[in-house]
Amino acid sequence: MERLPGFRDFYPEPLPHNDVWSADARQYIFENWRTTARRYGFREYDGPPLEPLDLFTTKSGSEIVAQLYNFSDKGNREISLRPEMTPTLARMVAAHERSYKKPIKWFAIPQLFRYERQQKGRLREHFQFNADLIGETDPAADAELIALLIDALRSFGLTEEDFVIRLSSRNAWHDFFQQGGSDSSHEYDFFQAIDKLERSAPEENEKKLTALGFSLAAVNAFIEKGAPTVELQGIIDNLAARGLKDFVKVDYRVIRGLAYYTGVVFEAFDRKGEFRAIAGGGRYDNLVKLISGGKVDLPALGFGMGDVVLVELLKARNLLPKFDTHMDVYVLIEDEHLRRPSLKLIHDLRAGGFAVDYPLTPAKADKQFKRAQELKVGHTVQLESEAYVRIRNSASRDEVVAGVGDVKNHLG
Amino acid sequence: MERLPGFRDFYPEPLPHNDVWSADARQYIFENWRTTARRYGFREYDGPPLEPLDLFTTKSGSEIVAQLYNFSDKGNREISLRPEMTPTLARMVAAHERSYKKPIKWFAIPQLFRYERQQKGRLREHFQFNADLIGETDPAADAELIALLIDALRSFGLTEEDFVIRLSSRNAWHDFFQQGGSDSSHEYDFFQAIDKLERSAPEENEKKLTALGFSLAAVNAFIEKGAPTVELQGIIDNLAARGLKDFVKVDYRVIRGLAYYTGVVFEAFDRKGEFRAIAGGGRYDNLVKLISGGKVDLPALGFGMGDVVLVELLKARNLLPKFDTHMDVYVLIEDEHLRRPSLKLIHDLRAGGFAVDYPLTPAKADKQFKRAQELKVGHTVQLESEAYVRIRNSASRDEVVAGVGDVKNHLG
Repeated sequence: MERLPGFRDFYPEPLPHNDVWSADARQYIFENWRTTARRYGFREYDGPPLEPLDLFTTKSGSEIVAQLYNFSDKGNREISLRPEMTPTLARMVAAHERSYKKPIKWFAIPQLFRYERQQKGRLREHFQFNADLIGETDPAADAELIALLIDALRSFGLTEEDFVIRLSSRNAWHDFFQQGGSDSSHEYDFFQAIDKLERSAPEENEKKLTALGFSLAAVNAFIEKGAPTVELQGIIDNLAARGLKDFVKVDYRVIRGLAYYTGVVFEAFDRKGEFRAIAGGGRYDNLVKLISGGKVDLPALGFGMGDVVLVELLKARNLLPKFDTHMDVYVLIEDEHLRRPSLKLIHDLRAGGFAVDYPLTPAKADKQFKRAQELKVGHTVQLESEAYVRIRNSASRDEVVAGVGDVKNHLG
Repeated sequence: MERLPGFRDFYPEPLPHNDVWSADARQYIFENWRTTARRYGFREYDGPPLEPLDLFTTKSGSEIVAQLYNFSDKGNREISLRPEMTPTLARMVAAHERSYKKPIKWFAIPQLFRYERQQKGRLREHFQFNADLIGETDPAADAELIALLIDALRSFGLTEEDFVIRLSSRNAWHDFFQQGGSDSSHEYDFFQAIDKLERSAPEENEKKLTALGFSLAAVNAFIEKGAPTVELQGIIDNLAARGLKDFVKVDYRVIRGLAYYTGVVFEAFDRKGEFRAIAGGGRYDNLVKLISGGKVDLPALGFGMGDVVLVELLKARNLLPKFDTHMDVYVLIEDEHLRRPSLKLIHDLRAGGFAVDYPLTPAKADKQFKRAQELKVGHTVQLESEAYVRIRNSASRDEVVAGVGDVKNHLG
């Protein structure tokens, strides 16, 4: 029986196949995300992986349904596996915003789902680190969030040589658009044209922009100049004060596809340009109001960082650690008369915080020793009698005999 | 916009409502499960939350579909959100069993889904700690797994006064059934009748058992006697050697509802009998073979422990800790000229592993101080100049002025 296409199994390492994702790597990624977020004062939350379909169409329009894992449940509700976390966050914040001091700094590590047309090797699920800051309009909030993004990437050993945050602003493009004097009902079409600049042919870009009353040359000149707005300059200065200036650059080609962004937007890319975006985010000051039906109006911004591109990048840069079994002790049981006191010792060591394994059933001494080596334990321990224990340091090969109550002191 | 019925939002603590599940409590539960499993040498794995419907009907028969969150996807595949983890585990092990040394000791913490008829307050999802041991027939494996279950519960502060493992065996009931000389094709009906003993009226039990050639009196006498089989006695002795004897008792009323159990079965209950089962499991020696279509034949056993009953029990026994924000330091910024060096200090402290918060925008001194108190930080830190810092211990109220490079040494 096979798993569904586009889904991953997570095996413990060492992996049976090189192309299988590992649970150990996933846990390593999650722990780095979590640790960095907590240092920044972000608190963890989560919502249901299934939500009413409306929650996603309200925000992104009905065209998004083509990309959703949606269905009717047995109660005839139109529901969907979550394709992103932000609508759930907006729903949760709107429901209880009075109970939380502003700014709200929250993060989550949801699994997200998309049902796109099947492409070979294309995943239909991934995990995403989401961090959001709600209730603060000042660009200091944008700087705080971008600093978190930078430090989350640095926690894996990535440096300013490896990645850069391309910083942009819909406000800058809004001003550019206004100065062109075009009809403001076409502003979102203009944003869409900018979003596609890098992925479309110049003639096509020219055609679309001309239809909107702009020339590709003027757009390119604006991008080329890359003059930061006052808002962006404030963010850059704030990051510079933290020593993070070399991790960001203004790049107006970034504008983000989703309709709901309202101000500063940004994407993290590897410097060599080998991979898709590592992370992306920005301001969505109107979304909480939209999702809450006008009841709650709070400015907000956030980013999402997926696990797939990140792991590919870490592998390519040789930054993904080797994961072993993390066992501390293997208890050898050669004399079966000593199995009962050995079980007692094993239980005491585990209660003392050590990861301990042992032969479940009688086994030859060399087989036990081999197993201890495979598990890469720090020490092997063997009862010599009910009262005495032989402790062997796997690295130094030093041996010591100690009283059975004294074992933990020798396992430092 | 509301979340779906039967699903939970997980907010950070302190909670806006008493009846809301918290992300902090969830993380606390997961970490205790994970830590205990690792001490026992169990490795983490995970599979997709969606699987082909067949994976679940192969194992449990088509009647299970009534309880599943199943649907047809856009590619017309019959699929289901996972209602349990064991079929996925069996699929994964069967696919790569040669790459892993036996016994395989694995755990997972999946979210599981059931679509049962709507009952007030009844959840349609929960998280479950799954631990399984594959490739060993000896009862020493059963004892190892049950010891893990006991220690996982003890990690929350629960004692032998709080819970007990009711230990039983389908082998014991198999022998009882054989001695009755009934047609072996009715054995599973007999198991079902035993499973319902506690939930059905005596007359109904009598009627069902008589139809199968047994008397309720004989069944009750067998339960009353509770004589452990050789196999169960071996497990009890093994647990006794670890000092865990008081956590188990033989109770043949436990037989587990699912069709696939083959030997020892067990359930963990609170001693006061206030809650549903905290955990349950047993041997399923034929399942890997069934799922792999006969390709891989490995004995196995496992248990599942859900988060819902566990959290209810911990709340009732006052064992669920209070969760605060876990912030170490609040950096006060009263003089806005010192914001830039303050940002540098904040960044250095976070890089040094401290959880640090600060006012994103200019704020009055008393408001900042109040925020520091709300966050229950261990220390407040305030730049006096670019070179000197005032550090205040929140508990002792001791203050010290130190060089800006020397702050970390004062935050022990």
